[in-house]
Amino acid sequence: MGDSLPRIVLYDTTLRDGSQGEGIQFSVEDKLRLAQRLDELGVDVIEGGWPGANSRDSLFFDRARHLRFKGRLAAFGATRRPGIRPEDDAGLRGLLQAETGVITVFGKSWLLHVRESLGIQARENLDLVYDTIDFLKKRVGTVIFDAEHFFDGYKDDPDFAIQVLRAAQSGGADALTLCDTNGGTLVFELEEIVQKTITLVPHIPLGIHCHNDSGLAVANTLAAVRAGVLQVQGTINGIGERCGNANLTTVIPNLMLKMGRETGISRERLQSLTRLSRWMDELVNRSPRKDQPFVGRAAFAHKGGIHVSAVVKNSRTYEHVDPELVGNQRRILISDQAGRSNLIARLAEFGIHGVVADDPKLKELLGEIKDLENQGYQFEGADASFELRARRALMQMPVYFETEGFRVIDERRSRGNDDDKVMGAEATVKVTVGKTALHLVGEGAGPVDALHTALLKALEWAYPGIRNMQLLDYKVRILQGEGTKAKVRVLIEWQDEVRQWSTVGVSDHIIAASYDAMVEAVNYKLFKDQVDQVS
Amino acid sequence: MGDSLPRIVLYDTTLRDGSQGEGIQFSVEDKLRLAQRLDELGVDVIEGGWPGANSRDSLFFDRARHLRFKGRLAAFGATRRPGIRPEDDAGLRGLLQAETGVITVFGKSWLLHVRESLGIQARENLDLVYDTIDFLKKRVGTVIFDAEHFFDGYKDDPDFAIQVLRAAQSGGADALTLCDTNGGTLVFELEEIVQKTITLVPHIPLGIHCHNDSGLAVANTLAAVRAGVLQVQGTINGIGERCGNANLTTVIPNLMLKMGRETGISRERLQSLTRLSRWMDELVNRSPRKDQPFVGRAAFAHKGGIHVSAVVKNSRTYEHVDPELVGNQRRILISDQAGRSNLIARLAEFGIHGVVADDPKLKELLGEIKDLENQGYQFEGADASFELRARRALMQMPVYFETEGFRVIDERRSRGNDDDKVMGAEATVKVTVGKTALHLVGEGAGPVDALHTALLKALEWAYPGIRNMQLLDYKVRILQGEGTKAKVRVLIEWQDEVRQWSTVGVSDHIIAASYDAMVEAVNYKLFKDQVDQVS
Repeated sequence: MGDSLPRIVLYDTTLRDGSQGEGIQFSVEDKLRLAQRLDELGVDVIEGGWPGANSRDSLFFDRARHLRFKGRLAAFGATRRPGIRPEDDAGLRGLLQAETGVITVFGKSWLLHVRESLGIQARENLDLVYDTIDFLKKRVGTVIFDAEHFFDGYKDDPDFAIQVLRAAQSGGADALTLCDTNGGTLVFELEEIVQKTITLVPHIPLGIHCHNDSGLAVANTLAAVRAGVLQVQGTINGIGERCGNANLTTVIPNLMLKMGRETGISRERLQSLTRLSRWMDELVNRSPRKDQPFVGRAAFAHKGGIHVSAVVKNSRTYEHVDPELVGNQRRILISDQAGRSNLIARLAEFGIHGVVADDPKLKELLGEIKDLENQGYQFEGADASFELRARRALMQMPVYFETEGFRVIDERRSRGNDDDKVMGAEATVKVTVGKTALHLVGEGAGPVDALHTALLKALEWAYPGIRNMQLLDYKVRILQGEGTKAKVRVLIEWQDEVRQWSTVGVSDHIIAASYDAMVEAVNYKLFKDQVDQVS
Repeated sequence: MGDSLPRIVLYDTTLRDGSQGEGIQFSVEDKLRLAQRLDELGVDVIEGGWPGANSRDSLFFDRARHLRFKGRLAAFGATRRPGIRPEDDAGLRGLLQAETGVITVFGKSWLLHVRESLGIQARENLDLVYDTIDFLKKRVGTVIFDAEHFFDGYKDDPDFAIQVLRAAQSGGADALTLCDTNGGTLVFELEEIVQKTITLVPHIPLGIHCHNDSGLAVANTLAAVRAGVLQVQGTINGIGERCGNANLTTVIPNLMLKMGRETGISRERLQSLTRLSRWMDELVNRSPRKDQPFVGRAAFAHKGGIHVSAVVKNSRTYEHVDPELVGNQRRILISDQAGRSNLIARLAEFGIHGVVADDPKLKELLGEIKDLENQGYQFEGADASFELRARRALMQMPVYFETEGFRVIDERRSRGNDDDKVMGAEATVKVTVGKTALHLVGEGAGPVDALHTALLKALEWAYPGIRNMQLLDYKVRILQGEGTKAKVRVLIEWQDEVRQWSTVGVSDHIIAASYDAMVEAVNYKLFKDQVDQVS
């Protein structure tokens, strides 16, 4: 089936439209990391943001320029403002300054918006679209036109909506994206409109951009592809304004595994989809949706007794696809027999080979992990913590130092006025390196900083390398428990000049959890530095 | 459009298939309350559970018998076991003992399952289905047959799948449900199979039962209705095994508001859908999905500046339906793109009316918010913090108490062994209530808990109401800055017996940020309690 069908171009807008989701706020650093992950996956176009409109997005493009991508970056913006020549439009200048290979501009294709939002007539809107595309196309390789509210516009006045697309095509656009901006279009309506549009606007690739306000973004995207669309827009985990955008972690496996369509993602890379999805949730600090199709923790979890016995005999009985194809795994919620081979595969990822299934140390490690996961640890976002525990269980981990306790004093002196507040923290730590017991004190902006200072002071004489490790990210989330006594999970990301790693700590005491994650990160660094020296 | 189309029967399986979702465990009491809520909404058939297979479900039916329902209860079970006469089958006896008006039995319609799970031949399976329906139909008013794996079965062997339906029809079934049990069927496949089935098995109403493993349960359900299906199965909030069932809170508004179909739910009752959805999440103790179509908190939330100014002029510009139709509401999010019109729209949501655009206090407030947002505050997830600042800027906020500072001591005594760790926190706070200066100490599991204890001690004599506020969620994320000295943002969600609210604190000292958010939450509660008393 797949061979005769054209390849689908994947256009990711997580960094741009995804950032419109409630509670989503990407730093420039987040954006750069996410762009690289998307590029590794094999996404064709990565829409980075709206330069000019947002200083953070401009900075992103400045820094992204120095990175190497296999795919292409796109800068996003609006058509020129009414009454202004393209060359005088600050927005268009901002787009060009991003120096990307692709520029995507959106324009109005619904008369309601043309009249009410822009306050202009139909004719002038066609000029805006034509001028803008024409201006950009003379200055950049690829120009994509996003027809905002295309489906609502078409339902309202099909002639006008089609004229807008033709104006963009005449201006030289390389592709036209049909947007269901309000997410209100039903599948059969959308399919019919796409079919008609393909006939009315031939000789140019069409794309699709769906929102999920009717719970149909994925279905609409797939229907558009079936009707002949060649470019698919969406976001990782479906994040985006209101109910979100088409979820690429659902769209991609449906396209590749069920509709036999090729994309820039290889079958091998598709297996990283689950990991990318969970990493993304960590990035935006929200709990992954267990019931997310394909990549959720419960997507292949079997609970009912009948289901479990059938699925053990033949997984096709209750699984629509093989979970490994997307890097997910089957979970039998009552038995833990499945775990051991998974664990061996996971260890191999860290370069720990040759562990056999009946090694008692493996069983012990599995038990420890299950126990910790029940307490609320989650190793998905904390590879370093996982590796350390595995190496300890397999007796492959040296002891660099031991911790014996700590004390932190936080103090705010204040006379009620913000300017008078004096805040600080002092920490003392006790550690033993070999036979030397150390007790040191550090000051800091806050308790984590003070503990970090004290721990460095205690260890740097023995391990000077640890001075150049730095905290990169710090996140806390509540787990189980009641009110202010609830257990929290602290996830910290670290870096030095050669690597990045993350560690996790869990406790009903936030500072204790932070300190545990910090101690683990130091151990990880010392181990990796030692391995590097040996090899 | 709607008048000529037949009414759709809503069949809810939240209590049965919904309870297969990971982490879902209903008590009998929960089930009874949920059944009543579904009945009030106007659902036609409420599937209560599998009596006999599950003692909790049997008890539910015993107790439900004494309640008054407008709709009908259904008991669910399997066809008789191979080699056993219907009258000797314990499962079928259990179904009859539930004494419901409707009995639903499922049977196999995929040969793979007939052979591998039941271990019998095709012919014998047809007998099972016929016998079972025939036996039940002589003893109960309505019998529905659920054809498990119908779509996979049809793709594998259409003749067999259709024969199974005909066997149930011959046995006297009142309706036949086509189930996409594994959730793997794409919309166009499902639509085609339903169309063919309607032609091949006429003179009996068909139903649809979809799972969401491909993210298509809602789309598939709507496509089946369009193809002629008359009965729709699903669950509230889409809970169910693996990726869940078709979400009725999405299906129902699509059917009624977009496809012009009538159901047992009146237009007026439809407005209780949002409340039912949130109540349901509370029942199963999980945070509501903000991005849930129609009923989510973010479903009509607007963030981008362009969107906000357009939606205020004309809500159709960025809303596919009027939020009030499903009992939801529009929300204007304050973000770094905020402008003055955003702010006025936002204030009106809090009941602060009559503020004009050129009010200098408004300008000041906007400046303050932008300034705080530059520091890393985010008011999107912290409605209460935002409202407090607005009311202070507009001189509408009383001073209940003043804070003067605090001190926290965290201590872990340890001898290197996990079991020996002793961890705790002690906090002292200074506050002034009126002219009374207070200095109190509290202990806790961690620093936030200790501060909470101390603050309550200091304030409860003056404001006893604050005792019943509780921390519900706590999140920290890093903002700008370097390493362990970086600024963090603490977001806390609180609740008391009548409301939920959230507050934010930002500082390079995590405990200071937490304390600030806590102090703000107390102020908010005191203000709301006072307003409630006055009105």
